[in-house]
Amino acid sequence: MINMVGTLKIAILLFDNFTALDVVGPYEVLSKIPNSKVYMVAVKPGLYKDVKGLQMSAEYSLKDIENPDILIIPGGFGIDSLLNNQEIVSWIQNAHISSKWTVSVCSGALLLGAAGILKDCKVTTHWNRKEQLAKYGPTIENERYVKDGKIITSAGVSAGIDMSLYLLSLVVNENFAKAVQLGMEYDPKPPFDSGSPEKAPKEIVDKIRQSNKTNNK
Amino acid sequence: MINMVGTLKIAILLFDNFTALDVVGPYEVLSKIPNSKVYMVAVKPGLYKDVKGLQMSAEYSLKDIENPDILIIPGGFGIDSLLNNQEIVSWIQNAHISSKWTVSVCSGALLLGAAGILKDCKVTTHWNRKEQLAKYGPTIENERYVKDGKIITSAGVSAGIDMSLYLLSLVVNENFAKAVQLGMEYDPKPPFDSGSPEKAPKEIVDKIRQSNKTNNK
Repeated sequence: MINMVGTLKIAILLFDNFTALDVVGPYEVLSKIPNSKVYMVAVKPGLYKDVKGLQMSAEYSLKDIENPDILIIPGGFGIDSLLNNQEIVSWIQNAHISSKWTVSVCSGALLLGAAGILKDCKVTTHWNRKEQLAKYGPTIENERYVKDGKIITSAGVSAGIDMSLYLLSLVVNENFAKAVQLGMEYDPKPPFDSGSPEKAPKEIVDKIRQSNKTNNK
Repeated sequence: MINMVGTLKIAILLFDNFTALDVVGPYEVLSKIPNSKVYMVAVKPGLYKDVKGLQMSAEYSLKDIENPDILIIPGGFGIDSLLNNQEIVSWIQNAHISSKWTVSVCSGALLLGAAGILKDCKVTTHWNRKEQLAKYGPTIENERYVKDGKIITSAGVSAGIDMSLYLLSLVVNENFAKAVQLGMEYDPKPPFDSGSPEKAPKEIVDKIRQSNKTNNK
């Protein structure tokens, strides 16, 4: 187990078929915390592929990082195969006991649900995973991110950026979060207004819902 | 040299001290192009560290991918040390001859400038790199992304997401881009409105400008 007195430990879980932006959104924001270190963590150290083949390296095993200050669980299609993985679930349960913040991006919330820590919490997740998450007993909200005590869950993929800027303002301060936002020039101007099921054309929403059902068979 | 008939080849350049979100923003969007493959490319195959230590894998060398259809140059503090790297500059010059699209994120535009392909082009880059980019002869615009022929440059870091959704609509179609936007739930709601030098508090803007001057000494 790694102990660096005074350094804020941020752990991000990697696994095969994660979603790259779920990892890198929070990473880009929270790695800027002064006197912090990000630990990429997996069941076994090594390279992990996102859903389209991009490979990122996890240098640490779960037992190397038992007490992160900030625990980050990204999502991706690979999350479903982890929900019954006792080693990962136990690690999350244990890490959550001492964490200052436990956060998820997108379908990463399912793993927090499987660890039993979302019961009766207010949470959110990817719009297309809400029914699945509801089975773990939380109250699902229709927000970009939701804070309930020390747990913060975010909506799909890109929402991890918004959530992390908010978390950064809590961990450091608002001016620091604004400086990081400026550094990454996060002044979003999507060319289309299709980022939520309320705004996107109905036929596109239906198609994605259908495809997700097929993937989760 | 790799040849896969009919598959759209997307090359993303990796190097030490890249910015992770510059890579993953476009990756997350453009890897969804049907019948495409993303090639992570570097001078030598191997692991490359972003400015804060996150490691991504480049499986291909420059000579493996000489004719990408889409050439993507991310930015980061490491870009400055590449501007006189003849091997990389030549690769970009050569790849640009046959590319369908040549794009940059953030300070990645400097490398396109160093390759001499931005002269008299309309372009953009990170707000704090504009003076530096101007030396290569382009017209700098104050936009989220700028298309000039087959060259598309984007503003800082997170702007690569907006640029890529726009490019996706050109490569596939607008409905497909909207579906990808919905899939990644890109309905941004930053908690602060500090993402551009016009919007951020002046003292924060000045501080970042100053720190960049120090870094580039």
